[in-house]
Amino acid sequence: MDDKQRSELSDLGEFGLIDHITKDIKLRNKGSLKGVGDDAAVIDNSGKISLVSTDLLVEGVHFDLSYTPLKHLGYKAAVVNFSDIYAMNGTPEQITIGLALSNRFSLEAINEIYEGLKLACELYNVDLVGGDTTSSLSGLFISVTAIGSAKKEDVIYRNTARVDDLICVTGDLGAAYMGLLVLEREKQVFKANPDMQPDLEGLDYILERQLKPEARKDISKMLEGIKVKPSAMIDISDGLASDIMHICKGSKLGCQIYTDKLPIDSVTMNMAADFQIDPNTAVMNGGEDYELLFTVSPGDYEKLKDINGISVIGHMTDAETGMNLVTSDGMSITIKAQGWDGLKDKLSPEA
Amino acid sequence: MDDKQRSELSDLGEFGLIDHITKDIKLRNKGSLKGVGDDAAVIDNSGKISLVSTDLLVEGVHFDLSYTPLKHLGYKAAVVNFSDIYAMNGTPEQITIGLALSNRFSLEAINEIYEGLKLACELYNVDLVGGDTTSSLSGLFISVTAIGSAKKEDVIYRNTARVDDLICVTGDLGAAYMGLLVLEREKQVFKANPDMQPDLEGLDYILERQLKPEARKDISKMLEGIKVKPSAMIDISDGLASDIMHICKGSKLGCQIYTDKLPIDSVTMNMAADFQIDPNTAVMNGGEDYELLFTVSPGDYEKLKDINGISVIGHMTDAETGMNLVTSDGMSITIKAQGWDGLKDKLSPEA
Repeated sequence: MDDKQRSELSDLGEFGLIDHITKDIKLRNKGSLKGVGDDAAVIDNSGKISLVSTDLLVEGVHFDLSYTPLKHLGYKAAVVNFSDIYAMNGTPEQITIGLALSNRFSLEAINEIYEGLKLACELYNVDLVGGDTTSSLSGLFISVTAIGSAKKEDVIYRNTARVDDLICVTGDLGAAYMGLLVLEREKQVFKANPDMQPDLEGLDYILERQLKPEARKDISKMLEGIKVKPSAMIDISDGLASDIMHICKGSKLGCQIYTDKLPIDSVTMNMAADFQIDPNTAVMNGGEDYELLFTVSPGDYEKLKDINGISVIGHMTDAETGMNLVTSDGMSITIKAQGWDGLKDKLSPEA
Repeated sequence: MDDKQRSELSDLGEFGLIDHITKDIKLRNKGSLKGVGDDAAVIDNSGKISLVSTDLLVEGVHFDLSYTPLKHLGYKAAVVNFSDIYAMNGTPEQITIGLALSNRFSLEAINEIYEGLKLACELYNVDLVGGDTTSSLSGLFISVTAIGSAKKEDVIYRNTARVDDLICVTGDLGAAYMGLLVLEREKQVFKANPDMQPDLEGLDYILERQLKPEARKDISKMLEGIKVKPSAMIDISDGLASDIMHICKGSKLGCQIYTDKLPIDSVTMNMAADFQIDPNTAVMNGGEDYELLFTVSPGDYEKLKDINGISVIGHMTDAETGMNLVTSDGMSITIKAQGWDGLKDKLSPEA
């Protein structure tokens, strides 16, 4: 394959590659309402909608088994796909699993992964309906496809935000990334001195956010209850910067986001101070929060402002204004998507 | 994960593992009509049925890039999933792709894979609606999920064959396996002497069956045209032995299959002679034919007997009779599933 010109994937980046691959894809079946380019594909079954989301998790790239329990890994693999379905305002109902693993893994290891997958299915009321288990020459790969349902009029896309809409986010951000930093630090400490006990006291929250995240299945009903329908929605998997960029680019708009409105947990704050990093960096570029980011009409502010666990963090602007992060001293910084890039190997590249 | 008892996957085998994983799975959503245990999951959308099939293809286990063009690989990855949907008597309409690849691969390599995927989608009228592209530390992984549709009353399962039903198969069998043997032979020849040109004259048919198989999208309409509805159906991916076993076990029945009725192409026959193997072995245990294996009522024999490309190869019996292959000299051999086992590494295991 190398006899022609060779282009490096890292030059394109993940989003560049997606654009490149998908630019000439045409949809042929009338049921295919939406293909690539949102949290999930949207398929019309004569009225009722199916939502389909796929993720592939790779050992050494997306997870490190030296600090990731296999049961948690299975749980997370399922939940991150459920999150994509909730981000379309749908309900996940089925998943299929592809599992490839080397002979380094035993049956007990597969059991652990499936226990996590099944627990997630139980708690989210989802059926595990199919899959494929096979061997790999090295490493563990988990592919999950989630299928959800929604009424056609309820589906919320990411490219339908409007100028002046308020930008809202659920829960708090940056904790999963701080959890990852702690786990990486403890791994290095352990490597240097295997007798050391990990120092994780008081860090349960950020570790759980990293190792066993939950998807926001409660938000759809809550918004329905206060009669707010978001104009656009996405889940925060790559970091707030990347994900607001998807809404802005898709909707051909800009945004203003205010740092002093960003919801950050106190443990995240304290750990950021320990690590001497700006907590806003964890929020903007950390990722894996699996909170929902959505836009609403300015008229909905009164309904939302007192809801616990919803933060209004900014507003949409016209495209010319660009995408800006406004700091507490009034400085405006252009938002760049530096989210986690699955195409750049984090660990050692293949020999 | 090795602090408890360790059980080896190879002791269970692929089908044993599937049984183990799936034995306690309960279905919770009323739309989930059929979960694991057939060619595809069956989901009811208030009348219209969605069929969902997932496959994970792993470099070094399912394919060898030294003789597999990447475009063919993409094509095959899509088609084998379409085949699962046809085996349920449905029509594939959408696919999602998960692709993990190491930095050994360039953008041109991804393009080749996607060209194959897109060509298959074009020829089978399927929409590529989503996916996930990421890096791996080593090797290439392709996960494909196909989604199809069918009317509820048209879906054909594998566990609904009846005693005395005739067993039919489309096309011819064993060719893909002979193609694989030729490719493996030429690889060894090339390794020994890189100046040798591959000797592939007259072998186009079996090579194409291995490298660029097609799914039988024509069979459903053909059977409808002659007013035959199979009682059970499956596609032949693991070899006739494994796949008839799935129908027998699912339907709690036995079978008699006659070797002199097995459809084998003359090139397959000649290559089997060259390799000094029994061509029936290629048919029973070779796999990757992607033909359809189905059962019909004995009364349908007159409608089927003159149809080109359909072979009646035996009949269903009660379970006590067992699963038997009857040779031309009247000997009866018990059928054992020795199909290709994705859980036993074919190449070198991980260090």
